[in-house]
Amino acid sequence: MSYLNPDRLFDPEPTVRGIARELYESVRDLPILSPHGHVDPKLFAQNQPFPDPTELILIPDHYIFRLLYSHGIRMEDLGIPTRDGSPVEMDHRKIWQVFGEHYYLFAGTPTGLWLDTEFAEVFGITERLTGETALSIYDQISERLQTEEYLPRNLFDRFNIEVLATTDAPFDDLENHIAIRASEWSARIIPTFRPDAVTDLSHMEWRENIHRLGEVCGYEITSYASFIKALEERRSYFKSQGCTATDHGVESPLTHRLSEGDAEALFRRALKGKIGQTEAQIFTAHMLMEMARMSTEDGLVMQIHPGAMRNHNRDVFSRFGPDKGGDIPIRMEYTRNLHELLNTYGNDPRFRVIVFTMDETVYARELAPLAGHYPAMWLGPPWWFNDSAEGMTIFRERITETAGFHKTVGFIDDTRAFASIPARHDVSRRVDANYLARQVSRYLIDREEAGKIIRALAYDLSKHAYNL
Amino acid sequence: MSYLNPDRLFDPEPTVRGIARELYESVRDLPILSPHGHVDPKLFAQNQPFPDPTELILIPDHYIFRLLYSHGIRMEDLGIPTRDGSPVEMDHRKIWQVFGEHYYLFAGTPTGLWLDTEFAEVFGITERLTGETALSIYDQISERLQTEEYLPRNLFDRFNIEVLATTDAPFDDLENHIAIRASEWSARIIPTFRPDAVTDLSHMEWRENIHRLGEVCGYEITSYASFIKALEERRSYFKSQGCTATDHGVESPLTHRLSEGDAEALFRRALKGKIGQTEAQIFTAHMLMEMARMSTEDGLVMQIHPGAMRNHNRDVFSRFGPDKGGDIPIRMEYTRNLHELLNTYGNDPRFRVIVFTMDETVYARELAPLAGHYPAMWLGPPWWFNDSAEGMTIFRERITETAGFHKTVGFIDDTRAFASIPARHDVSRRVDANYLARQVSRYLIDREEAGKIIRALAYDLSKHAYNL
Amino acid sequence: MSYLNPDRLFDPEPTVRGIARELYESVRDLPILSPHGHVDPKLFAQNQPFPDPTELILIPDHYIFRLLYSHGIRMEDLGIPTRDGSPVEMDHRKIWQVFGEHYYLFAGTPTGLWLDTEFAEVFGITERLTGETALSIYDQISERLQTEEYLPRNLFDRFNIEVLATTDAPFDDLENHIAIRASEWSARIIPTFRPDAVTDLSHMEWRENIHRLGEVCGYEITSYASFIKALEERRSYFKSQGCTATDHGVESPLTHRLSEGDAEALFRRALKGKIGQTEAQIFTAHMLMEMARMSTEDGLVMQIHPGAMRNHNRDVFSRFGPDKGGDIPIRMEYTRNLHELLNTYGNDPRFRVIVFTMDETVYARELAPLAGHYPAMWLGPPWWFNDSAEGMTIFRERITETAGFHKTVGFIDDTRAFASIPARHDVSRRVDANYLARQVSRYLIDREEAGKIIRALAYDLSKHAYNL
Repeated sequence: MSYLNPDRLFDPEPTVRGIARELYESVRDLPILSPHGHVDPKLFAQNQPFPDPTELILIPDHYIFRLLYSHGIRMEDLGIPTRDGSPVEMDHRKIWQVFGEHYYLFAGTPTGLWLDTEFAEVFGITERLTGETALSIYDQISERLQTEEYLPRNLFDRFNIEVLATTDAPFDDLENHIAIRASEWSARIIPTFRPDAVTDLSHMEWRENIHRLGEVCGYEITSYASFIKALEERRSYFKSQGCTATDHGVESPLTHRLSEGDAEALFRRALKGKIGQTEAQIFTAHMLMEMARMSTEDGLVMQIHPGAMRNHNRDVFSRFGPDKGGDIPIRMEYTRNLHELLNTYGNDPRFRVIVFTMDETVYARELAPLAGHYPAMWLGPPWWFNDSAEGMTIFRERITETAGFHKTVGFIDDTRAFASIPARHDVSRRVDANYLARQVSRYLIDREEAGKIIRALAYDLSKHAYNL
Repeated sequence: MSYLNPDRLFDPEPTVRGIARELYESVRDLPILSPHGHVDPKLFAQNQPFPDPTELILIPDHYIFRLLYSHGIRMEDLGIPTRDGSPVEMDHRKIWQVFGEHYYLFAGTPTGLWLDTEFAEVFGITERLTGETALSIYDQISERLQTEEYLPRNLFDRFNIEVLATTDAPFDDLENHIAIRASEWSARIIPTFRPDAVTDLSHMEWRENIHRLGEVCGYEITSYASFIKALEERRSYFKSQGCTATDHGVESPLTHRLSEGDAEALFRRALKGKIGQTEAQIFTAHMLMEMARMSTEDGLVMQIHPGAMRNHNRDVFSRFGPDKGGDIPIRMEYTRNLHELLNTYGNDPRFRVIVFTMDETVYARELAPLAGHYPAMWLGPPWWFNDSAEGMTIFRERITETAGFHKTVGFIDDTRAFASIPARHDVSRRVDANYLARQVSRYLIDREEAGKIIRALAYDLSKHAYNL
Repeated sequence: MSYLNPDRLFDPEPTVRGIARELYESVRDLPILSPHGHVDPKLFAQNQPFPDPTELILIPDHYIFRLLYSHGIRMEDLGIPTRDGSPVEMDHRKIWQVFGEHYYLFAGTPTGLWLDTEFAEVFGITERLTGETALSIYDQISERLQTEEYLPRNLFDRFNIEVLATTDAPFDDLENHIAIRASEWSARIIPTFRPDAVTDLSHMEWRENIHRLGEVCGYEITSYASFIKALEERRSYFKSQGCTATDHGVESPLTHRLSEGDAEALFRRALKGKIGQTEAQIFTAHMLMEMARMSTEDGLVMQIHPGAMRNHNRDVFSRFGPDKGGDIPIRMEYTRNLHELLNTYGNDPRFRVIVFTMDETVYARELAPLAGHYPAMWLGPPWWFNDSAEGMTIFRERITETAGFHKTVGFIDDTRAFASIPARHDVSRRVDANYLARQVSRYLIDREEAGKIIRALAYDLSKHAYNL
């Protein structure tokens, strides 16, 4: 593993590096808490061998193929399945070869760093991926994937994951979670309640989703009142299955309570298919208030992930579907948008909301001042495009001076790529260690305190914030 | 004072540190100019001993209690007085103990750094504040506060403050300033003319304030014309009492001149209590133009402090009042908002406007290009949440390449916490020294020039920009 | 040249500096590609000696005189010509003396660094510019400008410029380009098609410009259809003269296709002088779509330079005209504004658009995600106020993790100041070398890969992106 330097991500200045190394070593082997992500629980319910490297690593990961696509490589040639079933490249070794030839494009990106780490530390690969080494690496990974050691549950145990939270629709019956708990395997894999598919009236399959929600509840949802009842029941069910948090992926973090009458009217018009974009947005703003209200009652921690313009590239969306690298961030505003939510619930000791952003300009200006004042508000870590060495450093630099360390919630990998989880947490622990080492070396934080903080960032804060 | 390292805030890289130390040493002992802040002049008029540490340090400082509050500690338990007089914790040793137990929350914040410095350098404390040391530190500070050495005037002299500007309402009679100058003590404590309470038509006590203004002027203010006359007279009076500057705390930096007729009509409707939020905003925009016009005539330097959404947390506001940590920044725009002001007065050699922001995104994009062109526009230093090691570094990094050093106005502590003034100026001098040392070590500024610049930043620019 | 340190711009940390130096050395002597700028081609067509230093360096460079003006030095006293011909200072030695006395204002600015480099490396000056040295330096430069070695063509050859692109109006007959190619001198100086003067209906001389365009085409432009025909013909003509790119300086990057009927109607109303600001903006948005459409057909690379509020200072504009330092950036938005353009042409392999910004807040949030997905979109380097050591570093830090290095297009000097071109490219090569050295020293990019990347940034990417 000669290409993975043990001091990677640490500043070269010897004082900083020495402190960073010590801090990192002190948390390197702590268990992983992953309280928000998108790994499919079926992996662990079924515990079947992972397919080949292309299927495991490239095809599901839009971080990888979007950059290849941006350099003119057709999605079809990367094996990305089409919606209409029109043919794509099926030779996965050939796709991997293309990947290897273009792997230099990932220099300096977090994806490149995660992959290097994953190749080395999960699969024991000792060469860098290039056009020359591509097929040899493909074969090595393939071979390992067929061994018992690389079955999903064995990897999970080896990764030392203490809790893994999945993300689940409100009409999901959580059968995979149940199956896992019914098995002799004792891992803690918990669901997260994410109701976007039914709270976003403009969702393309909204009426179908409402129908699904009714089915799982055992009654038809014909009114706003029954909709709210259904959501409360499903939250309760999720909670009974180990869920500790909800998640809300909204375009805007606007929060605003409608009157019951207005909410009812909007909902009924949506059922009739007569809803506009603006009305859908205000209903979403209202549902954030409702979800907060429910959280004060059932204790589920609320997460808000706003700010992506989904499916910006309509051609890619129409041919390949959602989550294909075409989601683009937009500018965010929180001070005014969260005003109503925080005024209603922000001082309530029963409530906790964890707010994320892809817009770094709000860290110091809006999010840190809000979290540095309201007891209920916590700061989610750098997310999506910002989940990187520079992105995580900027987060600490722009948040800490106003909100400190202890209103942040630790690292969240937010990934579909199960095998990349240890690499992602490792990068986070290294970056935080380096940030703290810079502070220690400038005598802004003392060495002993930094030792406590790095542990909080790597483990304690997640455990506390998500009630794990 | 072992816990305060003499090299704090300097980069660990030896070349940078060596230069930073030299530059800092060259200005460490320069007198302090504090041309904008909120210290109560009554302190020095009466020269009574400061009360206990909790009353001196914690209760008036929303930087401190907002962070404690954000971690669920009730404001009542911190002794913050309620508006309706309902009881709060009165045992100040007990409050201090809570503070000590939670002082770890301030790791990495400027408040923590200022407090550490203040404890060590003003009060001679040699241990860090923790739950264990809290009461001992409380007692040490208490004891010192009873000695003559710690009387306000003696601290002022010991702090080597050359000028301290207070912030005063236009209807203030400045009796404390007069009393200070009438005493045998020769310190220079000057008022600043801040008319927000009468220029903001939406101010909750606006009509009462207009009445107060009329009273101090000796005539009733029943028209816009008499309002303008009153403001001109009060500016003249402030100037006669040593004032060199005005200050304007506005939500938006919009500037726009109304016709005399429209201004008169708006003002009269406000007197009748019939004014909306939008009308109040446009009147504020107009008053910025009027204040600039008056500055061209009387030579008072104009300061604009925009961008806080005041009293975001209505519950905290209603129970505890303003300035309780619930003011949250909003995104700012200056290029268009200052267009009218700068076009009318920006080329006028008699005019100087110092513009502040809490939105760092405008430093490089808007403020530096404006100040790097208009002769009348100067840049206020990092303010409020940005008044920190990272915040001050980012300010230099994003401003200097377009506007240079010499359109900035030196450091401003902007504080109510008198005993923290030396610590704040010390941090600023260190951060600027370190910034310059980085430039010198990269051969971008030569060593000799850096020596002149650090002196300008620490002293000369304030003196010049504020006509001190 | 003792004041120009060979390690300037490199971090002092020895590991970083050592790697940076090596990387820089490997590209220092590569030819210069300058695919976007504003040098007047007449310089090379006529090849006359440059006038005196003030005329060559100060008077045409608004980077220099805007900062002097911001410190209260009158434009007239700097010899800036007035529009109405009212007199200005004509003694260029006297102006240069004023410049020298105020040269300390440029400490820490890119202009200062470029000038220092230009003085030392182009003119062989060995002292820093100050009030004391000003006249001696003036005389040395003057003397050199009279020698054959300093004729424009000889400097061009000495600067090792492989391609220099100028910026030209669509009605320009390109006679200077033709004259250069007709001469025995073999330099490659190519035009760029910049049609703002005819596509911006609110341009003050729009109708005159349309008339000029008709004249050069040989027919009167009386309709939108003939306007489009004329543009297509002129693009074709430019292409025949070596042009490889177009450029569009727009206030907003909004893109939106009008119906042919609406476009025709707007155009005809503009011909009658009946066009409002909003209509002009939407027509500009439409013309960006049309320009993209033409690019897919003729292969010219499209550049978009949005975001300046031109002539912010109306007094300076009315007395001295455009490009006098009074252009101020405004906040930008790209995700929504480029939506239509990228959806229509962003997946088209025949199309390439290079997008610039002066708003650094969009680097990580909008531009890198867009360029890291759409095959047709490339990222222009830091521009105008951001064309600086910190500005270029921030660009790499905020772009690379999402878009990598290979969707950027190398350095662009964008200058009118011919003699500053080598200095500007040198700064860029140094800053990129230093950025890469930091990555190598943290083991994020390996040394060998960094060697390839620095070459790409200094040369290959420009050549490829601009089809040079």
